Amino acid sequence: MIQPYDLNPEELKHYKPEQTAEKDFGEFWEGTLKQLAAVPLNYSLNRYDYPVKGVKLFKISFPGYQNANIDGWFAIPAAPGQYPGIALFTGYDWVHNGNVHEVVNYALYGYATLQIFIRGQYGGSVDNVITSHGNNSGWMTKGILSREEYYYRAVYMDCVRTVEILASMDYVDATRIGVVGGSQGGGLALATAALSDTPVVAVAEYPYLSNFSRAIDIAPRGPYGELNDYFKKNASPEIEKQAMITLSYFDIMNHASAVHCHTLIAAGLVDDITPPSTIYSVYNHLNCPKEIEVFRYYGHEFLPGFVEKKLRTLMKFLADSNGEKAD
Amino acid sequence: MIQPYDLNPEELKHYKPEQTAEKDFGEFWEGTLKQLAAVPLNYSLNRYDYPVKGVKLFKISFPGYQNANIDGWFAIPAAPGQYPGIALFTGYDWVHNGNVHEVVNYALYGYATLQIFIRGQYGGSVDNVITSHGNNSGWMTKGILSREEYYYRAVYMDCVRTVEILASMDYVDATRIGVVGGSQGGGLALATAALSDTPVVAVAEYPYLSNFSRAIDIAPRGPYGELNDYFKKNASPEIEKQAMITLSYFDIMNHASAVHCHTLIAAGLVDDITPPSTIYSVYNHLNCPKEIEVFRYYGHEFLPGFVEKKLRTLMKFLADSNGEKAD
Amino acid sequence: MIQPYDLNPEELKHYKPEQTAEKDFGEFWEGTLKQLAAVPLNYSLNRYDYPVKGVKLFKISFPGYQNANIDGWFAIPAAPGQYPGIALFTGYDWVHNGNVHEVVNYALYGYATLQIFIRGQYGGSVDNVITSHGNNSGWMTKGILSREEYYYRAVYMDCVRTVEILASMDYVDATRIGVVGGSQGGGLALATAALSDTPVVAVAEYPYLSNFSRAIDIAPRGPYGELNDYFKKNASPEIEKQAMITLSYFDIMNHASAVHCHTLIAAGLVDDITPPSTIYSVYNHLNCPKEIEVFRYYGHEFLPGFVEKKLRTLMKFLADSNGEKAD
Amino acid sequence: MIQPYDLNPEELKHYKPEQTAEKDFGEFWEGTLKQLAAVPLNYSLNRYDYPVKGVKLFKISFPGYQNANIDGWFAIPAAPGQYPGIALFTGYDWVHNGNVHEVVNYALYGYATLQIFIRGQYGGSVDNVITSHGNNSGWMTKGILSREEYYYRAVYMDCVRTVEILASMDYVDATRIGVVGGSQGGGLALATAALSDTPVVAVAEYPYLSNFSRAIDIAPRGPYGELNDYFKKNASPEIEKQAMITLSYFDIMNHASAVHCHTLIAAGLVDDITPPSTIYSVYNHLNCPKEIEVFRYYGHEFLPGFVEKKLRTLMKFLADSNGEKAD
Amino acid sequence: MIQPYDLNPEELKHYKPEQTAEKDFGEFWEGTLKQLAAVPLNYSLNRYDYPVKGVKLFKISFPGYQNANIDGWFAIPAAPGQYPGIALFTGYDWVHNGNVHEVVNYALYGYATLQIFIRGQYGGSVDNVITSHGNNSGWMTKGILSREEYYYRAVYMDCVRTVEILASMDYVDATRIGVVGGSQGGGLALATAALSDTPVVAVAEYPYLSNFSRAIDIAPRGPYGELNDYFKKNASPEIEKQAMITLSYFDIMNHASAVHCHTLIAAGLVDDITPPSTIYSVYNHLNCPKEIEVFRYYGHEFLPGFVEKKLRTLMKFLADSNGEKAD
Amino acid sequence: MIQPYDLNPEELKHYKPEQTAEKDFGEFWEGTLKQLAAVPLNYSLNRYDYPVKGVKLFKISFPGYQNANIDGWFAIPAAPGQYPGIALFTGYDWVHNGNVHEVVNYALYGYATLQIFIRGQYGGSVDNVITSHGNNSGWMTKGILSREEYYYRAVYMDCVRTVEILASMDYVDATRIGVVGGSQGGGLALATAALSDTPVVAVAEYPYLSNFSRAIDIAPRGPYGELNDYFKKNASPEIEKQAMITLSYFDIMNHASAVHCHTLIAAGLVDDITPPSTIYSVYNHLNCPKEIEVFRYYGHEFLPGFVEKKLRTLMKFLADSNGEKAD
Repeated sequence: MIQPYDLNPEELKHYKPEQTAEKDFGEFWEGTLKQLAAVPLNYSLNRYDYPVKGVKLFKISFPGYQNANIDGWFAIPAAPGQYPGIALFTGYDWVHNGNVHEVVNYALYGYATLQIFIRGQYGGSVDNVITSHGNNSGWMTKGILSREEYYYRAVYMDCVRTVEILASMDYVDATRIGVVGGSQGGGLALATAALSDTPVVAVAEYPYLSNFSRAIDIAPRGPYGELNDYFKKNASPEIEKQAMITLSYFDIMNHASAVHCHTLIAAGLVDDITPPSTIYSVYNHLNCPKEIEVFRYYGHEFLPGFVEKKLRTLMKFLADSNGEKAD
Repeated sequence: MIQPYDLNPEELKHYKPEQTAEKDFGEFWEGTLKQLAAVPLNYSLNRYDYPVKGVKLFKISFPGYQNANIDGWFAIPAAPGQYPGIALFTGYDWVHNGNVHEVVNYALYGYATLQIFIRGQYGGSVDNVITSHGNNSGWMTKGILSREEYYYRAVYMDCVRTVEILASMDYVDATRIGVVGGSQGGGLALATAALSDTPVVAVAEYPYLSNFSRAIDIAPRGPYGELNDYFKKNASPEIEKQAMITLSYFDIMNHASAVHCHTLIAAGLVDDITPPSTIYSVYNHLNCPKEIEVFRYYGHEFLPGFVEKKLRTLMKFLADSNGEKAD
Repeated sequence: MIQPYDLNPEELKHYKPEQTAEKDFGEFWEGTLKQLAAVPLNYSLNRYDYPVKGVKLFKISFPGYQNANIDGWFAIPAAPGQYPGIALFTGYDWVHNGNVHEVVNYALYGYATLQIFIRGQYGGSVDNVITSHGNNSGWMTKGILSREEYYYRAVYMDCVRTVEILASMDYVDATRIGVVGGSQGGGLALATAALSDTPVVAVAEYPYLSNFSRAIDIAPRGPYGELNDYFKKNASPEIEKQAMITLSYFDIMNHASAVHCHTLIAAGLVDDITPPSTIYSVYNHLNCPKEIEVFRYYGHEFLPGFVEKKLRTLMKFLADSNGEKAD
Repeated sequence: MIQPYDLNPEELKHYKPEQTAEKDFGEFWEGTLKQLAAVPLNYSLNRYDYPVKGVKLFKISFPGYQNANIDGWFAIPAAPGQYPGIALFTGYDWVHNGNVHEVVNYALYGYATLQIFIRGQYGGSVDNVITSHGNNSGWMTKGILSREEYYYRAVYMDCVRTVEILASMDYVDATRIGVVGGSQGGGLALATAALSDTPVVAVAEYPYLSNFSRAIDIAPRGPYGELNDYFKKNASPEIEKQAMITLSYFDIMNHASAVHCHTLIAAGLVDDITPPSTIYSVYNHLNCPKEIEVFRYYGHEFLPGFVEKKLRTLMKFLADSNGEKAD
Repeated sequence: MIQPYDLNPEELKHYKPEQTAEKDFGEFWEGTLKQLAAVPLNYSLNRYDYPVKGVKLFKISFPGYQNANIDGWFAIPAAPGQYPGIALFTGYDWVHNGNVHEVVNYALYGYATLQIFIRGQYGGSVDNVITSHGNNSGWMTKGILSREEYYYRAVYMDCVRTVEILASMDYVDATRIGVVGGSQGGGLALATAALSDTPVVAVAEYPYLSNFSRAIDIAPRGPYGELNDYFKKNASPEIEKQAMITLSYFDIMNHASAVHCHTLIAAGLVDDITPPSTIYSVYNHLNCPKEIEVFRYYGHEFLPGFVEKKLRTLMKFLADSNGEKAD
Repeated sequence: MIQPYDLNPEELKHYKPEQTAEKDFGEFWEGTLKQLAAVPLNYSLNRYDYPVKGVKLFKISFPGYQNANIDGWFAIPAAPGQYPGIALFTGYDWVHNGNVHEVVNYALYGYATLQIFIRGQYGGSVDNVITSHGNNSGWMTKGILSREEYYYRAVYMDCVRTVEILASMDYVDATRIGVVGGSQGGGLALATAALSDTPVVAVAEYPYLSNFSRAIDIAPRGPYGELNDYFKKNASPEIEKQAMITLSYFDIMNHASAVHCHTLIAAGLVDDITPPSTIYSVYNHLNCPKEIEVFRYYGHEFLPGFVEKKLRTLMKFLADSNGEKAD
């Protein structure tokens, strides 16, 4: 059965809902980036012995937004040199002990790869924003009544800082940096590509954090539903209005126009967590060079058929000018 | 079908697992209470117009643990006088807009009633403890690697302070204060009765936060499962050991011996969120005068058959000496 | 996710399906009320000791339609006086042992409150109509092939009699009587307000028994489905036609025009038991002063956000002229 | 997966719970049979044109217990003669329009076959016992507080009368009558074999109405659960005790010793509606010649592998002495 | 609730999607039938002792397509004579040990009845087509990339041969042969009626194998979903296109125009395995005399209300001219 | 909740059910291997352009058991040389288009890696064994009535041949070959390690195909259930006995003693597809050097915490002697 809760393939192509950004959208983010700029750009690396040859793996820590400690993995090819860089962003509540293999593999593919643990969601990444109101279980509604306190404000900045760290490293060719992720990580990749000029390519699989008001109406399951739960628990038109204004600053549909680098997006037509129309909401607002791969029979799950396309795109934009390795 | 995941009624009566408190359990809580004592005891009331006669309702705010703002409802009979007091604690993620009727009704029953919003879970109650590690969605694993940072440390102190506030009010007869709650609220009522000498009666419906290690093994659903999810995401014997030590300081099974007031507990035999054996784990360690009402066909849900018993117990311990109202 | 099985909020406002009453609809109910009038109007009260001060609680019994015994609870403020009255109707298969607290609370709010046990569904309320055909499990199809034998004919009359009993009591100001209920109880409140001139206000939360033919088409779960099951078991166009004619006499959509008192209705937009369009079917046919409160994120469940509105409405129409109590 | 909720095959063989019959069990049923005897034994047949040759089909009506009208189907081989008779009893809430084929087929097999519609469950079979208390949705708890009023008292008598009608017919050889049914029908077949001396063979597939107290504890789904629901709604040790006493008069485990004819039973080991131990509860108390066929991989569903065994058993006890038909 | 995934009853009546047959559709089947014709037409019968009088039952085996052994049941009235014949086709993965009663009953109704076991799905019916590609679990995608290798090519031919065998038997009046089946069996009945001139009547309950592309889009569950799974596993527009071309040769919607005998179809409006529009897809393309019975409240399940209609239709077209039996 | 359907961790350690191998177990496999030996050992490679540097990827085809074509992926480090080899076996019905990344990554880790498509389950791998009986949907029961025809006989031989091909390649150091897989692939890795002397290390995550009779009893879901379905469909003690004898030849519990290389196994304690006791059934019968990693909170799913252990083990047994990494 094809999804009965969303538009059909033809309608999706032309689905371009009006953007909802407030007038001071740009100003808000400029101010936020200024706050980030005040945080000293540094990091520490800690070698981690991993049973794969040809790659060096490190635990990395650096100060993120509001000086919160952010942890992550960093891996590079073992051979000395300067490599193209990839910032890898993870899904919502997704990281588990041992999940380092993806970082390692990207390093083997020839990329200096940095994957952060999203603050508050895993490891030593500290969520240090105190919010003046309670929220539902989960992170979607933390600070939702204030754009300053909203959880993803700090997260977006941590992601921008991730790219800045990569660009600052001797290991990395700062002119060849990409942002990559799926679900929450896809949303973060696009937000980062909008808020930073550094990335030259972005790859987002079924990106999250897009067109919240439609998601509230149609997403059958997944974390968009935390919004529904919040509006149920805090039933009040004023609260809902205020929350939707907060969300408008973070909706990647509203960030879309600011993305300048080449962007590749994947969507599954039976995705019931990030339904296809929420993905097209951001895709159809992108003004950059862009591609979308549609998987008719796939939902919010690993897309084996997308791997080759993703790697080929990354190679084209990050690695092809890199001089050939021996083959 | 009777629950297939737990002990039978006869076994439950004799189920008394060994307590798991560390040696410095008492010391830890003395220190924590000292920190609470340093927070100034005051509150502000804000009259709220509610369409029920004979009762005065207020929004209340006061500084809780670490000076965090705690919000709640406070209601008293409209007729001037000093009334017995009830601290009402809510379930996990339970409060919704409009949920004030229970507070109002208790005031109509003749009790000065104070219900707080648990920090971080609703309204303006601020969760101001920053933890040095990420956690799962929900509150169960926030700060779980450190007894100082664990979420419920602050919550337990907010609850003790709730009782202290009640006792400090002119409206309230400080010698007749009870603690009442269900699920998380039941756990908090018992923890408060253990950590404060003020309550003269405690009523806990299917109390949560008891015998965590058994709950991890047998609870088919509900927030105990957040622990399982955490140990899955952070799979490591060291982390699990450290977390279990943290939890031991908060396990109401370990607090049981410190409860001195009369205690009434309710348990449903098909409760799959707080399975009966976790409830008997605390009940069988209580040394105070105690009663348990068992509901063979009920789970973790409203127990209509318990209301009268609960009210009668509260009346006996809080109100009967209060001089009769005209009838 | 918003309900995918029903109209959207804008369509609901204008959804006014044609009424399906047969020509002799009025005649049928006149005759039925005449039969009720032949039953002697009397009742017996039996004091019940309940641990709440300020209220007197009684078990009540009275002869209902066809002289069947009807049981229920009756509560009044303890202070002597004449109070406004409320007839409280319960949901389908809803009453449980111990469920008396709602009646008690209404008495504390200042209302003489009478809640009956719907015949056959609980306690000593006798369903004494023998039907000449079998039916499905449940009460929805009992007697469905004959308007004379249909289960709700007797129930509607029991409800009218409930109001008549209230009006006949010394405790009650017969000019200030309201009818209140949710689900089945909401349908009964509206039916009673249509069949009796006594009520001056009706409050119905997600009323049941409305627009049966649409409910059969769209209700994903709940007792409307008993009709689907019946038409499956007794598959025959003739039986279905005959049953739909019977139902037309009981459809509150057809009773709507006869309601004269102020009416307040609540609807949840994700209600999958009494879907919103079935509720609007009756609401949009009401010619009385009316209000509807819509809860976008709520289904067929307790609506905390409706309590205050309900109490304020009852106070306005029943209690405000009652002279203020001391405050 | 084999059922995790019941005994294993070896334990089942030896599972023989104590019978729970009250002292006046026999007396009660004698009295009840006397009441039945007072109902005139007669019936009317109405030819029904059915598109199968070699068989005559009739709608049958007769007065059952308390003179209630009981409807059913009756079919005989078209060729004049006297045939062995089968009383066919249906499952709980099981009959649907068009379900006549089973009766027709049994007639083609050479049996005069009478299938009644269980009173209140379908067609024109009238449930004319008025009970003095409400009950849950369904028939399991109707009249449960009184052995005189309990729903199955009348049903058991209707079944005995069914056999008596068969025996009275010219079409039927009264010395060769069997009782056959599945689920509720299996329980009724066994009850009838206990309460009437007429049947010479009984075949019961996964019989219902056996060992209620165990069923309450272990049946994961199905109508035994109506008892759990009732004891939840009417939570009270007195009510539960009274109800269990009532049920003891109807428990086929207590009727088992009175069955004298050859009895064949089928049980599915993954039956979660009538779990195998409830079936062995009656089987192991049978003192008559008996056989049980166990289906390890089947639940409460059609047992194709049992059909041949059933037909062979019926042929052996009812038809073999009947002189061979031409072959 | 009526199905929300398909057209409403009025739309169904006019739903006639374009047929998708390739140009060489006829040629392909002519060639295939020629291959079948090369298989020698013979069979062996093995008497099976069954406890029903008046009928002779046999195990039958015969060479099917590609000489694969095909097993089945064959039954005839015990009295010598020539009878009308019925080829009975079973549902997908449907046959179980003991399932012979349906064949026996049809013989008692006066028909020489032959039910085959579909190759590979049960018993000794051999699926001897080796396919050059892997497939999903199940039979729907076996050989799907080639019309020559596709699983149902051999099955359709086995069914044609079934009719040919019947027609060749002395027991059978070759001018009075019908094809009957439900689900997969319904699809096979219609395919056989299209590919063979022998049948004079076809009865298909909720036939499967119709309008595959719509089924892929809307069928909520059942074996059509094996196609979705295959296109997911083998995600590629080329593979999907190739598979859809293969399926077009087997789609009974494309075979419809070749059916010449009287055809009776049944459809359930809440069928979520063979949704009604897929059934109307073939029905509305039939040019033969035809009837459809619609069951509004039934899904993909036994339709008791259809039995009489089915038997009456078979009697009319197969048995009425047969001279009356004594009645 | 920990699994309620299986043994606890302590019991698992000592769970060693009796092996069920028939006397001619060894003889049967000798004969089968002889048949395999008759198939010419050759293969063809087809370069596939994949966007990852440092690796060469090929489509590989070779004749498997009974000369069936077997397809797969083969990858090696791009730099010329001889590498340790890994045979990678996939889960049941697991391969999808695009799934080549795992093979590529293993090549980047320094291994010549060959992953076959299991016959009949994907791609051009042909299942050319014709079975003389039907089976259930899926592969588990294909040919189950004959050890010669059983599906996994050919599959086991294809796997042995996979290792032989690797060992025959110039690219591969035949003294350093490992077998690796999860679920079905884990079972195949162990079977291959038993049937071939070539592997020097085996890694099996939650291996399938072990202790069938226990799996039938306790596995709540997954393909072991196909056996339950088969025994339901083909209900007969003889068939069940015959099938269990066939399965005994393939049960990896019976192959365990023949494994000589170092073996690493992973088990999840909440695995409901290959429950832990079925895994311990093989583990506790291994006589080779062995390790097991137990994941208390994991089921039949990706085990991130096992990756490092797996790679370290492979490195130790396959790569460490391979000269040091440059670092």
